[in-house]
Amino acid sequence: MSMQGHVTPQKMHFSEALKLRSGATLRDYTLVYETYGRLNAERSNAVLVCHALNASHHVAGTHADNPKNVGWWDNLIGPGKPLDTDRFFVICINNPGSCFGSTGPMHVNPDTGRLYGSDFPVVTVEDWVNAQARVLDRLGIHQLAAVMGGSLGGMQALSWTLQYPERMRHALVIASAPSLSAQNIAFNEVARRAIVTDPDFHGGHFYAHGVVPKRGLRVARMIGHITYLSDDSMEAKFGRELRSAELAYSTQEIEFQIESYLRYQGDKFSEYFDANTYLLITRALDYFDPAREFGGDLSRALSRAQAKFLVVSFTTDWRFSPARSREIVKGLLDNRIDVSYAEIDAPHGHDAFLLDDARYHGVVRACYDNIAREIGA
Amino acid sequence: MSMQGHVTPQKMHFSEALKLRSGATLRDYTLVYETYGRLNAERSNAVLVCHALNASHHVAGTHADNPKNVGWWDNLIGPGKPLDTDRFFVICINNPGSCFGSTGPMHVNPDTGRLYGSDFPVVTVEDWVNAQARVLDRLGIHQLAAVMGGSLGGMQALSWTLQYPERMRHALVIASAPSLSAQNIAFNEVARRAIVTDPDFHGGHFYAHGVVPKRGLRVARMIGHITYLSDDSMEAKFGRELRSAELAYSTQEIEFQIESYLRYQGDKFSEYFDANTYLLITRALDYFDPAREFGGDLSRALSRAQAKFLVVSFTTDWRFSPARSREIVKGLLDNRIDVSYAEIDAPHGHDAFLLDDARYHGVVRACYDNIAREIGA
Repeated sequence: MSMQGHVTPQKMHFSEALKLRSGATLRDYTLVYETYGRLNAERSNAVLVCHALNASHHVAGTHADNPKNVGWWDNLIGPGKPLDTDRFFVICINNPGSCFGSTGPMHVNPDTGRLYGSDFPVVTVEDWVNAQARVLDRLGIHQLAAVMGGSLGGMQALSWTLQYPERMRHALVIASAPSLSAQNIAFNEVARRAIVTDPDFHGGHFYAHGVVPKRGLRVARMIGHITYLSDDSMEAKFGRELRSAELAYSTQEIEFQIESYLRYQGDKFSEYFDANTYLLITRALDYFDPAREFGGDLSRALSRAQAKFLVVSFTTDWRFSPARSREIVKGLLDNRIDVSYAEIDAPHGHDAFLLDDARYHGVVRACYDNIAREIGA
Repeated sequence: MSMQGHVTPQKMHFSEALKLRSGATLRDYTLVYETYGRLNAERSNAVLVCHALNASHHVAGTHADNPKNVGWWDNLIGPGKPLDTDRFFVICINNPGSCFGSTGPMHVNPDTGRLYGSDFPVVTVEDWVNAQARVLDRLGIHQLAAVMGGSLGGMQALSWTLQYPERMRHALVIASAPSLSAQNIAFNEVARRAIVTDPDFHGGHFYAHGVVPKRGLRVARMIGHITYLSDDSMEAKFGRELRSAELAYSTQEIEFQIESYLRYQGDKFSEYFDANTYLLITRALDYFDPAREFGGDLSRALSRAQAKFLVVSFTTDWRFSPARSREIVKGLLDNRIDVSYAEIDAPHGHDAFLLDDARYHGVVRACYDNIAREIGA
């Protein structure tokens, strides 16, 4: 049970077009967001949390109509928690292109009158940050106490420090990377091919056919899950455990518990996640590469940053390995930017950033304690 | 160009039923094989090479009708090569269930008169070894100078030493493992789901429909390829290199060279590999676990072995990591079995076992030089 209590999603509509990196524009869009805690009189205690691939604005607390729907980072954010909502005003915004309420492929394209589907414009991490900045403008928040995110959310936090260097005091970049590796892109591409080649995808306009490319979504999610867990944690959790005492000697029946787990995860995901959103978000991951416009020189790319950084990585995370976080740290140090780095010895792979680990949460708590002192919260 | 010269595949028919581990039997089957070099008068210089997932009996040399079709381990096997066919008589047998000539899912099931398809019985590493042993019986070879294999082929070599301990002097187990890990099984399962849920799979009887589940095969192969390469080698080979100077900002078009490479590999594979064979071979991988009948105690399982071993692993192989080879080495040492172990510092991941690396080939050459001295070849 969460101590946060109930939270109500809010909506903000924008009729001013959002110019995207691709050159396309998104006009007449709505963003869904949630807030926790209270904005102080000085408007200095706001923390923006950025969500990752399959998460939403619902980062903490529960919804009144569904007390079991606990926010995805509820173990970290709430009254008395490392990011203490008794002291900070926390905002989490569902990104455009998502399938959790903000304008996305499942909504009507005002230019055509039909659902966007695969016509939804490609959105980048930079575009999301710009969209989020507009929400903060409306809320009257000029400077954030901190921006924080894990994984793809960490990329957004990093991008914030480069796009709006003066708009935050601190940035917490957790289990993230300055860009995807070739292997990361490769896994994304396989997932996308599984979705796009599913006959039920219908070129991305499957809504009109009353079907969902579930086969593709299942495979995509199964691949994702393998990369979220460490080899060791998968071994510890499942190993070669069989579902039945006797082998069935079958190529299609489930023999091993790991197969059962993956199929379950794939089935569940295919019930609620939008295929076009999956394509968009994996592409946003692929494209993120702030060093690109500096000829690959990350140090030069990071020279714009003014925030103080906390970078956290997890030893068994092979999706976004500690080496990738260290690239960020080096780039910041090259610019004499204030950065703390914690490499947490955790067995859970990439998933560790979502789990309750005492050392990890201790580091985040200490960071927010310092920020609270700075701003007098 | 190979120095081996042309080689001609041969066929051997078996009307005696082969009893399989599953309890099923395979009757009236044919195996295709190739041999290189000459069997000496003492019949003591035979080396059996076992093939892995997507390879065949064509391990060295070229076919007269297709001089470009060089055997998959031609860099290691041939006149003057580490496994020198001027001294050894090398045999490689296509396993039942394969799609390269030996009886498999694309052949007629004598029980029904229609193609086996998914009715082809599940075959295990142990079954393959039994099938190979019958070929050796027919060839009049009682004891092999050595049995050798890489990856799944290494599992067969290991299994040979346990099923027929007295039938070989040496065993070379390369880039292999005593069983799949949960993560290994997980990747196999995703590949299988991609194939089985392709509407063109038709429950494994797609031949009758005149279609091939190419979508599933492509995804399966793309996943496989990611696991064959190391993160580092993929980074070195492709990195974030773009196909065009300008980004297309598209979720479906190719942006990165790694995407182009994977799609090409997937397309090529789907043109020649049989979907049912893919299911069978990944399942054979999953099932292999000689320690299972000894309560998970690999040392007890290996106590039957009498061969002298060379175990080779590659530092960047994350599919079958050096740690898995070390498990085999420890199990052998626990039984005071003669074992040499080489951990080769190579950047190429699992694929390294197929590549020409001086240190790796040097170790294999030294091993065969010793064997040649032993048998006076």
